[in-house]
Amino acid sequence: MSGHAESSAGGSPSLATMHFRRVGIVGVGLIGGSFALALKTVKAVDTVIGFGRTRANLDIARKMGVIDEIATDWDEITGCDLVLLAVPVGQLPEVMPKIGPRIGAQAVVTDAGSTKRDVVAYARAAFGEALPRFVPAHPIAGAEKSGAGAARPNLFNGRPVVITPIPETDAFAFKRVRAVWQLTGAKTVRMDVALHDTALAATSHLPHVLAFAMMNEIAQRPEGEAMLSLTGGGFRDFTRIAASNPEMWRDICLANRDTLCTEIDAFSARLALLRTFIAAGDGASLEREFAAARAAREALTVLSR
Amino acid sequence: MSGHAESSAGGSPSLATMHFRRVGIVGVGLIGGSFALALKTVKAVDTVIGFGRTRANLDIARKMGVIDEIATDWDEITGCDLVLLAVPVGQLPEVMPKIGPRIGAQAVVTDAGSTKRDVVAYARAAFGEALPRFVPAHPIAGAEKSGAGAARPNLFNGRPVVITPIPETDAFAFKRVRAVWQLTGAKTVRMDVALHDTALAATSHLPHVLAFAMMNEIAQRPEGEAMLSLTGGGFRDFTRIAASNPEMWRDICLANRDTLCTEIDAFSARLALLRTFIAAGDGASLEREFAAARAAREALTVLSR
Repeated sequence: MSGHAESSAGGSPSLATMHFRRVGIVGVGLIGGSFALALKTVKAVDTVIGFGRTRANLDIARKMGVIDEIATDWDEITGCDLVLLAVPVGQLPEVMPKIGPRIGAQAVVTDAGSTKRDVVAYARAAFGEALPRFVPAHPIAGAEKSGAGAARPNLFNGRPVVITPIPETDAFAFKRVRAVWQLTGAKTVRMDVALHDTALAATSHLPHVLAFAMMNEIAQRPEGEAMLSLTGGGFRDFTRIAASNPEMWRDICLANRDTLCTEIDAFSARLALLRTFIAAGDGASLEREFAAARAAREALTVLSR
Repeated sequence: MSGHAESSAGGSPSLATMHFRRVGIVGVGLIGGSFALALKTVKAVDTVIGFGRTRANLDIARKMGVIDEIATDWDEITGCDLVLLAVPVGQLPEVMPKIGPRIGAQAVVTDAGSTKRDVVAYARAAFGEALPRFVPAHPIAGAEKSGAGAARPNLFNGRPVVITPIPETDAFAFKRVRAVWQLTGAKTVRMDVALHDTALAATSHLPHVLAFAMMNEIAQRPEGEAMLSLTGGGFRDFTRIAASNPEMWRDICLANRDTLCTEIDAFSARLALLRTFIAAGDGASLEREFAAARAAREALTVLSR
């Protein structure tokens, strides 16, 4: 069940020789564009072909050298030996049925969706015979900017990319997709689909929901402005993610709905426990909890060095 | 009820001419020491006398020029025309009865406690005739370091200092203490005692409790380490305050117990509302809440420029 970190060196004998003739990028935004640039930088691809709805964005991507060609038809998927799905997760139910029947017999497919249980469900419904060659992935590399114009070859450098193979996944396709992500400079982490969604709910989706709730709870009071005038760096750090894109976070919360609700409940129970200690004046229990939290937070700092 | 921000220029005609013969600093740590240094920098004081339990710390303070003399007896309070209480709030019930009867007839007293309702209650019990000349204050200026060795003259520069006069407070004492804090470079904010404690519970104490709860909820799971390996800058910012001092936050949470519990309940209700939207797949309501939160957070960023 637990995550398994893999070094980007050594584990994949095919890394140095890995090469793709045509890579299809479906959704040439920050993630899709950066993926293409990273593979081009290490000369792992001859031609990158971009699929997308917004012509202006694709034109920018071609002008920047992020992609070499703009696809005019879904049939062009068939000629690709590697396909990355990098559209927002909400578009996958519409996009995957277009891709599924057109995946080449030798091609491998990966994605960049920030939830995996729903993506796997869409793939099972849409990919048919190609399902074993779909290797779900989630690169944990965000940035404030979006669109092809924000793409850069080093976006994934040193960042975790979670790869969540399913029982149907072909072992060779898994290794090949893992090697591709390692070529982008990412640190791949193999993880169970359910654990991925739980981990992301707990460490990303829930903190966002808490930060959104915190801002609203304060801002909507008559004294809100006076209260906020007293805040310093601690509050600013804590609420920084409340400035995130509302549409994107609406979609993420809904895509991971059940798991997120479970995490909200677990968190609420722990908060209720701390409240009990505070209300009872139980300083010893409070200090024990706070000290454990500090130790965990300090270990995280060490981990990230 | 709302906070009233006061500019440090203009409001106090006595600023330029304000001068103290002897300033007593009770608790010469980061806050007390920086207060002394700030007043020395603007030559508003002849002699600073330090009161404290730890001789080594007082020796450092004297060597650094933070204080000029080390008090050997509580009676030395009587000779001071300004006294700052800067010991941890937990020590005030013990310290205030020593100070109260010894406050000089013309002296003004202020403090630096991070909760005010309890400090006011201690003062009412201990200060007797001097109560009108006690002006409660809370400088919102922390730092990672503590002790006299960490003191610096610009600690309060541009930082908010909340001043919470009570009905008993003498108007002249209020103005004098406000001017002293402005001399340190701080932006003074006059606020009702209850609103101060609510504001701090909502914007400081609650976020700390949430961050502590978040770290423990994740770290104590078998998969905790794998989950934390996926975290990025957002999580790190959100949980940074979980590395705060456990004893200090135990004391703060207990000192502001009732108000903090009220804030935990209000926050929990708002979180439950968001959970309802998520569970029901109510994207429109979620997006509305998230957008309001983002607007509030962005306004805060503008405010702080």
